[in-house]
Amino acid sequence: MNSFGRIFRISIFGESHGPALGLVIGGCPPGIPVSVDDFTIDIERRSGGKPGTTPRKEEDSPEIVSGLFNGLTSGAPITILFRNKDTRPSDYEEIRKTPRPGHSDFVAWKKYHGFNDYRGAGHFSGRLTLALIAAGVIAKKCLENIQIEARVVSAGGCTDVDAAVQSAFREGDSIGGVVECITSGLEVGLGEPFFDSAESLIAHLAFAVPAIKGIEFGSGFKSATMKGSEHNDVILDEDGKTLTNFSGGVSGGITNGNTMVFRVAVKPTSSISKKQVSYSIESGKMEELSIKGRHDACIALRVPVVMEAITAIALTDLMLIRQTQI
Amino acid sequence: MNSFGRIFRISIFGESHGPALGLVIGGCPPGIPVSVDDFTIDIERRSGGKPGTTPRKEEDSPEIVSGLFNGLTSGAPITILFRNKDTRPSDYEEIRKTPRPGHSDFVAWKKYHGFNDYRGAGHFSGRLTLALIAAGVIAKKCLENIQIEARVVSAGGCTDVDAAVQSAFREGDSIGGVVECITSGLEVGLGEPFFDSAESLIAHLAFAVPAIKGIEFGSGFKSATMKGSEHNDVILDEDGKTLTNFSGGVSGGITNGNTMVFRVAVKPTSSISKKQVSYSIESGKMEELSIKGRHDACIALRVPVVMEAITAIALTDLMLIRQTQI
Amino acid sequence: MNSFGRIFRISIFGESHGPALGLVIGGCPPGIPVSVDDFTIDIERRSGGKPGTTPRKEEDSPEIVSGLFNGLTSGAPITILFRNKDTRPSDYEEIRKTPRPGHSDFVAWKKYHGFNDYRGAGHFSGRLTLALIAAGVIAKKCLENIQIEARVVSAGGCTDVDAAVQSAFREGDSIGGVVECITSGLEVGLGEPFFDSAESLIAHLAFAVPAIKGIEFGSGFKSATMKGSEHNDVILDEDGKTLTNFSGGVSGGITNGNTMVFRVAVKPTSSISKKQVSYSIESGKMEELSIKGRHDACIALRVPVVMEAITAIALTDLMLIRQTQI
Amino acid sequence: MNSFGRIFRISIFGESHGPALGLVIGGCPPGIPVSVDDFTIDIERRSGGKPGTTPRKEEDSPEIVSGLFNGLTSGAPITILFRNKDTRPSDYEEIRKTPRPGHSDFVAWKKYHGFNDYRGAGHFSGRLTLALIAAGVIAKKCLENIQIEARVVSAGGCTDVDAAVQSAFREGDSIGGVVECITSGLEVGLGEPFFDSAESLIAHLAFAVPAIKGIEFGSGFKSATMKGSEHNDVILDEDGKTLTNFSGGVSGGITNGNTMVFRVAVKPTSSISKKQVSYSIESGKMEELSIKGRHDACIALRVPVVMEAITAIALTDLMLIRQTQI
Repeated sequence: MNSFGRIFRISIFGESHGPALGLVIGGCPPGIPVSVDDFTIDIERRSGGKPGTTPRKEEDSPEIVSGLFNGLTSGAPITILFRNKDTRPSDYEEIRKTPRPGHSDFVAWKKYHGFNDYRGAGHFSGRLTLALIAAGVIAKKCLENIQIEARVVSAGGCTDVDAAVQSAFREGDSIGGVVECITSGLEVGLGEPFFDSAESLIAHLAFAVPAIKGIEFGSGFKSATMKGSEHNDVILDEDGKTLTNFSGGVSGGITNGNTMVFRVAVKPTSSISKKQVSYSIESGKMEELSIKGRHDACIALRVPVVMEAITAIALTDLMLIRQTQI
Repeated sequence: MNSFGRIFRISIFGESHGPALGLVIGGCPPGIPVSVDDFTIDIERRSGGKPGTTPRKEEDSPEIVSGLFNGLTSGAPITILFRNKDTRPSDYEEIRKTPRPGHSDFVAWKKYHGFNDYRGAGHFSGRLTLALIAAGVIAKKCLENIQIEARVVSAGGCTDVDAAVQSAFREGDSIGGVVECITSGLEVGLGEPFFDSAESLIAHLAFAVPAIKGIEFGSGFKSATMKGSEHNDVILDEDGKTLTNFSGGVSGGITNGNTMVFRVAVKPTSSISKKQVSYSIESGKMEELSIKGRHDACIALRVPVVMEAITAIALTDLMLIRQTQI
Repeated sequence: MNSFGRIFRISIFGESHGPALGLVIGGCPPGIPVSVDDFTIDIERRSGGKPGTTPRKEEDSPEIVSGLFNGLTSGAPITILFRNKDTRPSDYEEIRKTPRPGHSDFVAWKKYHGFNDYRGAGHFSGRLTLALIAAGVIAKKCLENIQIEARVVSAGGCTDVDAAVQSAFREGDSIGGVVECITSGLEVGLGEPFFDSAESLIAHLAFAVPAIKGIEFGSGFKSATMKGSEHNDVILDEDGKTLTNFSGGVSGGITNGNTMVFRVAVKPTSSISKKQVSYSIESGKMEELSIKGRHDACIALRVPVVMEAITAIALTDLMLIRQTQI
Repeated sequence: MNSFGRIFRISIFGESHGPALGLVIGGCPPGIPVSVDDFTIDIERRSGGKPGTTPRKEEDSPEIVSGLFNGLTSGAPITILFRNKDTRPSDYEEIRKTPRPGHSDFVAWKKYHGFNDYRGAGHFSGRLTLALIAAGVIAKKCLENIQIEARVVSAGGCTDVDAAVQSAFREGDSIGGVVECITSGLEVGLGEPFFDSAESLIAHLAFAVPAIKGIEFGSGFKSATMKGSEHNDVILDEDGKTLTNFSGGVSGGITNGNTMVFRVAVKPTSSISKKQVSYSIESGKMEELSIKGRHDACIALRVPVVMEAITAIALTDLMLIRQTQI
C-alpha cells in the first residue's frame, strides 16, 4: 500500500519526526548517471524559506544507500534516505490530545488504534513528499526529450499569487491555490485502456499528495459546460497533432501526441496561527487549540515540483510498459 | 493492466462488437446471495432509451459463469459475461480509415500497430462500463449499511438538466455534465496513507471511465479559493463528525466518518451527428466525417450508476484491507 | 489471488461442475495469430482416454470470447472459456458429507465456511489446468525460437512408465511420477534477482498445479550431496555456455544461456477405487468411503503439457519484463 | 520485482559492498513490540564464525529507520538498514574480468549491460538474506502460537553433518546440504487455490534465496514412488488432523491443520579455495581463477534461519489475507 508502479516501482517510508524518511525504487534501467547534486534544485523548490512558506528552512540532502555504482544506476533497487534533523517532539504533544482540524491526526489515531506516531503528523506528514521528489528526479532522467513544468496559476482565487499569499500571511491565515502541470514531447501510446489510463495513474498519485482536493485534465470541469462540436479536437496529421487540445493530451486514457495538461486544486494549509476549536480525545470535550510555530500561508507554493515528480513517475512506468508492446 | 484491486480484485475484458464483454472478480467473500435479477436495475439505469441517450435500447443480461453455488458466492472467482447482440460491423468501416475526433480510434490504432479491433471503439468502448456496473452490484452487496447515490447535477452548465439535453439533441450536438456521488454510513479508517488513499483509488477508477475529465472531493476546486480558517472542518465528537464537510469525508486519504462527496466532470459525447473533419490514415488528407446512427446527446446521463459502481468497488477493497488491521 | 504475472498476466476462474472454466490474459502483445485449432494438440495431450488416465474422454474446445480480431491478438485482454458438459452432480453428493483423503474437500469446506462448490472439487479441480494449458498455448507463440518439452521420466519409481501404471491400474490403486521439463533456446538475462527469479516464478506456478509435491532445478536435491569443485559449471564463452549444467540453466535466479532443466514430483492420484475411511462432517464419525467412477491410475501422465504451459507463461512474462531493461 | 507479498509486503535493497542493505515492510499490523535486541539471535544464527562457515564474523546490527514509535509498530512502513563495514573492494577486482563459476557474476554483467556492482556479487550477494531474516523476525511476532523450526538434516549426503563439513573444509572444497523446516500450530485455511497456494508462496521465496536448487513438501519426491492407497492421509477429526502427514500439512494449496513440513536442497558453496578455470571477459580466453579469502565450506549451515524467515513472511501474509475471508 506504500508502493506504486508496475515496472518503475516506488516504495516510500518514514515519519516527519522519526530518524528518517525515504524511498526505494525498483525497475529503474541501469546506466543512468545520478549524483547527490541532481536533487538540489527540486528539493530547493519544495523547501520553505520563501515568502508564503514556513520560514524555517529545511536543509535536506539525500543519502543514496543502494543502487548506484560508479555514479550510475546499476539496475539494482535504488534507496534514498533523508535524515530528520532538529526535530522538537515537545512541540507536538498537544496533537496527541486534541486532533487538529483539517489534519490526519484524528483518522490516524483511529486507524492505528492509537499506535500511530502523532508527532508532526508522523507518516502522514507532507514532509514525505520529499521522497516523491527524489523519485521524480530519477524518473525525469529516464524520460529523454520530455519536458515537465508545473506552476501555481492562482492562489485564493487570484492570479496575482504573491499578493494573495501575503494578505493571508498577515492575517495569520492560509489560502489554497491551483497548480497547472504541462508536459511536452510525449509520443502517442503511453497509458493502458481503462484501469491504467495515463489519467488514472497521475490522478492516483496526485491524490496521494496531502492537500490535493481535485484534478482535471485538459478542459476539465469546463468540459461539462461545452458542446461536442466545440470540444472534439480535430486530428491534423499522422502524429496525432490536434487543432485544439481540450482533451489535455490524453484520448481513451492513452497519450495522443499533444501536450499533456492537468491542474490540481490545493486546499489551504490546515495549520494556521488563528485559534481554532476541536474535540479533545483526552477530555471528551471541545477545546481551544492553538497551533504553535510558523506555518505556510499557502502550501500550494510547494506543490509544483511535487506534481512534476508524480508526472515523471507515472510516465516513466508507462514508458517502460510501452516497451513491452513494441 | 486490465485489473484493479488488492483483495477484491476485478479484471475486465471484451469489445463492443466482439462475442462478449465481461469481468472476473477475485477475493469476494463467500456466502453472499447473488442472482441475475440483482443486476437489472443498475443495468437499466446505464442503458439507453431515455431522452438524451441513444434510442437503441441495449438489452443486456448477465451470464454468471463461475463463482456462484446454490445462489451464493462460493469464495471462488466470479465471472460474468455480457453477450453482444445485433452488432452491425459495417457501420464502423469508416472508423478504420478516418479516426473520429474525441475518440480513442487514433491512439488505439497507433498503440496496437493497427491490430486493434476498431469496430465501435472495440475494447475502448464505453460499453465496457457494463462490466464495472456488474462489479459494482456485487460490491454494493459487500458493503452493509453503506448508501451510495450519484446523480447528474448539471448539464451544459445548467442545473435544468433535461432542458439542456433536449436543446443539444435538437441541434444534433452533445453536451457535457457534472455528476455528484454521495456515500453515507462509512466508518473511520478506510484508505491507506499516500498511494492507496481513498481518493486515489476512486480517482484512479473514475478516470478509467470514458469521458471523465476531472474529479474533485468535498470543496474540490473551490478549496483553492478558500482560507484555512474557513476550510478546516471542526471535529465534534469521538466518531469524527465534523461541523462542516469541506474535506468531503476524507482526511489524510482516510475516510473520516463523515459523508464522502465527490464530483466528476463528464465531457460531451464525442459522437455527434454534425459533420466534422479529421485526418484520414488512408488518404493522408483531411476528410469530412459523418458519424452515422443515433447518439447520446449527453453521456453524463449514463454516468451516475457507473460512479456508484466504482465507489463500491474501491470501498469494498478498502474495507477488506481494513480487516487486516484490526 | 487467482491472478499471476506482471505484464503477461493471467486470471483463471471456474469450477469442474459449474457452467464453465476459463481465463483472461492481459498484456499479450498484439499481432499474434491465434486460432481454435492451435489448442487442439495441447488439450489432447492433457485429456483422458489414454492408458492410465481416466477413460472418460473430455472433449474440450476453447471458446475465444475476447482479444482476437481477424485471427490476430488485438492487444486487448484475451478471454477463453471451456464449457462443462455432461456434468453429473449426483455423483458427488457424498463428498459433501465425507471429505475424500488427499483431496481439497476438507480445506475448501473450512476455508469457505461451507459455501464452496464441492462437486468434483469445484474450483479446486484439476480440470482448471485446462486454463493453464490455454494460457500456455498463447505464451508459446510469444516465445520465438524457444523449445519447451516435458515428459514423464518415471512412475512409481520405475522408468518403465507404462508397466508401472498398468500394474497400479489393475490393483484399483494409483501411483505418482516424476516429470522433467527442458527448455532450450533461452537468452541470458531472463529473471530478476531475488523475488522474481526464474526459478521462483516457475516454482510458484508449478505448486499451483494440483498434485505437485516437489520441484528441483538442474542437479536439484542431488546438489546437496555434491562438492563445489564438481558442481560449479565452468563458463566457456561470451554466450555463457558451460561445460556442465548442474545449475539447470539458471544462475542467481537469471537464465544463463544454457538449457533450463527442472523436474517435478507428482503424487499418486488421490481418487482411487479401493475403499478408504475418512471423518464424516455429517455424522461426526469415521466412515467408509468409496470413490465412484473411473480414475486416473497415474495423474503424472497428464502433467507434462501443464509443465510446458507454466514454463511458457513464466518465461513470456520475464521476456516482456526484460524488454524494459534494454 | 524486489518486492513480495500482498498485505504484509516486503521490499529489499542493497549490495554487499555498497553503503548498506535493508528492507521496507508495508502492511504490518500496529501495536507489535519490536526492539533491536529481537534480531540478535536470528542474525547470530545466520552469521559466520562457526565451523564450516566463513571465519570472518559479520557483526550486523539493525538500524530501524521508520515504522516504530515508543517501541511498538505504528502501522506505518517499517524500514531496517544494515550498514556494510570493512568492505575491501580490491579483493573483488578479479571478478570484473573473470566471472566466477557457479556465481551470478556472468548473468549480472550481461543483464545489466556491465553497469552492475560486481563487488562481492553486489545486489546478488547472499548477504541480502540478512534483509529476509529481519523481515522474518517481525513476521514471527505476527504469528502467535505458531512455531517454525528449521535445521540441517544432511550435508554432502551424510546425516553426520559436522564430519562432512570438516572433511570438505580440509580439502579446500565445499559441500551441499538439505534443510528441513517444520511449522506447527497452523490453523486450517491459509493459502489460496491455485496461484497463491501456501506451497507456491513458500517455494517462490525459497528460490529467491541464493544456492537453493530444490524444494519438496511432505513426502515430496518420494511421493512419486508411492501408491495412492499409501499416500492419502486419512482425516480423523473436525480439526483436520490426519493419521499420516504425507501431504506435509497442505491440501489443495491450503493449510490443512497438520504440521507443515518442507525440505530444500542447498548446493555447495560456489566460492572454493581450489583453483578453477573460467572464461575471461577481458582476454576472451579461459583463465585460471583463484578465489581469495576464506569461505563457507557448507553454506547450508546458514540456511535454516533463512527458511524460517521466509516461512514466517509467507504465512503472515496468508494469515492477513485470511482475515478478509471471515
